[in-house]
Amino acid sequence: MDARLNHKFSQRANGLKNPLAKALLALMEEKQTNLSVAVDLTNKADILALVDKIGPFVCVIKTHVDVIEDFDQDFIQQLTALSEKHRFYIFEDRKFADIGNTVKLQYSSGVYKIASWAHITNCHTVPGEGIVQGLKEVGLPLGRGLLLLAEMSSKGSLATGSYTQTTLEWAEKHNDFCIGFIAGRRFPNLQHDFITMSPGIGLDVKGDGLGQQYRTPHEVIVNCGSDIIIVGRGIYGAGRDPVVEAQRYKQAGWNAYQERLSGK
Amino acid sequence: MDARLNHKFSQRANGLKNPLAKALLALMEEKQTNLSVAVDLTNKADILALVDKIGPFVCVIKTHVDVIEDFDQDFIQQLTALSEKHRFYIFEDRKFADIGNTVKLQYSSGVYKIASWAHITNCHTVPGEGIVQGLKEVGLPLGRGLLLLAEMSSKGSLATGSYTQTTLEWAEKHNDFCIGFIAGRRFPNLQHDFITMSPGIGLDVKGDGLGQQYRTPHEVIVNCGSDIIIVGRGIYGAGRDPVVEAQRYKQAGWNAYQERLSGK
Repeated sequence: MDARLNHKFSQRANGLKNPLAKALLALMEEKQTNLSVAVDLTNKADILALVDKIGPFVCVIKTHVDVIEDFDQDFIQQLTALSEKHRFYIFEDRKFADIGNTVKLQYSSGVYKIASWAHITNCHTVPGEGIVQGLKEVGLPLGRGLLLLAEMSSKGSLATGSYTQTTLEWAEKHNDFCIGFIAGRRFPNLQHDFITMSPGIGLDVKGDGLGQQYRTPHEVIVNCGSDIIIVGRGIYGAGRDPVVEAQRYKQAGWNAYQERLSGK
Repeated sequence: MDARLNHKFSQRANGLKNPLAKALLALMEEKQTNLSVAVDLTNKADILALVDKIGPFVCVIKTHVDVIEDFDQDFIQQLTALSEKHRFYIFEDRKFADIGNTVKLQYSSGVYKIASWAHITNCHTVPGEGIVQGLKEVGLPLGRGLLLLAEMSSKGSLATGSYTQTTLEWAEKHNDFCIGFIAGRRFPNLQHDFITMSPGIGLDVKGDGLGQQYRTPHEVIVNCGSDIIIVGRGIYGAGRDPVVEAQRYKQAGWNAYQERLSGK
């Protein structure tokens, strides 16, 4: 396993180039959380109420703003205020997937103006390196960071083999802007250090019937070298208490990280 | 070359399963156009004015609604009215790229409610077959059609080899909803007939510096067996008269189709 995984997040911060990546790792150590919550609710009030409850326990709130029925700039202002109040970063899980010229517009403009408020966003690499270049032209001057999708946890994903390998090469090349990966494991043999964020984390269920497959925090952090667990319906699904669940997942993620540091 | 390419669009309509695909092919033959225009302008008034001018010459208008600064439901009502006035279909080039459960929400909900007005949309297959299944659950009951991205014209695209091959298999399996492909060429040896739409078409320039590469209508229609040419900045770029250019590209696309039919 990569020797950097024996180092604390706060130490690894020194080895990353992107300022936002450094700040995120430092925050995680200070706040003792490597939990990100994927908030996929569909109206402003529900999302803001949930985020205000779970904000103290997370390092990153992951959004899909294009599923919010009553999205407006007031939502962004309130979400930004919560990110300052509770100290977390906002990751818009846009999964950009178009050519460079188009993603520049999609990232900066339109109704959402994602680059103006999302500290982190992500993209697929299937269109070629131009997508990273295009997003970087917009995001780097604003101090933003980009995650690449090098693998996906969903059933039958085509991000494998040379697709994954080429994605890693582009991350190395653009490590001023690429802060890491959305993936189920840490990728070995990379020159630069990156942050790995793993979706599809659950403690109680195995799948959702539409191709999503779940794994535990211990599995992805200790066994697979990931850094941040992304939990969605496990936190706020029907019948769950989000505060209880956020604390439970925070603890599970942090325990797994501590176990990794201890080298057991 | 696939023998189906010697048949008129109106004949091929009989061989497709999806009702929208049949209607699109019939419209193309009747209106004598296989031109789609990619309208990437960023405000309502400009887009609607352009579409009203070029509507008579196109079979499909391709949109990126998430780059429109003043998007609202009035825009959709006006665009829909233009599609009825000039008889064309609306293709929202959303490039969905998430897991099934997420794309169902992104397609049906939020500010854009794409499924409620876009006759056609598209997706990447990188998340696995669940993305097609998820979109189909929303779109099929509404009479919509889906295009898959099996290849991309941008430089360094990772949609190659087994990625492309698996995408084709999913299209065959879901041909009740998948009407065809966004690709630079017709894919050989498929059981079912599909519509091929090719982006990156230009008569005057070769590239844009962010990875986009241009080809001519003759090259993609005659040599590569595509059906519909998608033209963007070639129609409405700086210094161009959109009506003149739309007529020019319509003629170039149709001539190429006629040449292919004649078997020269």
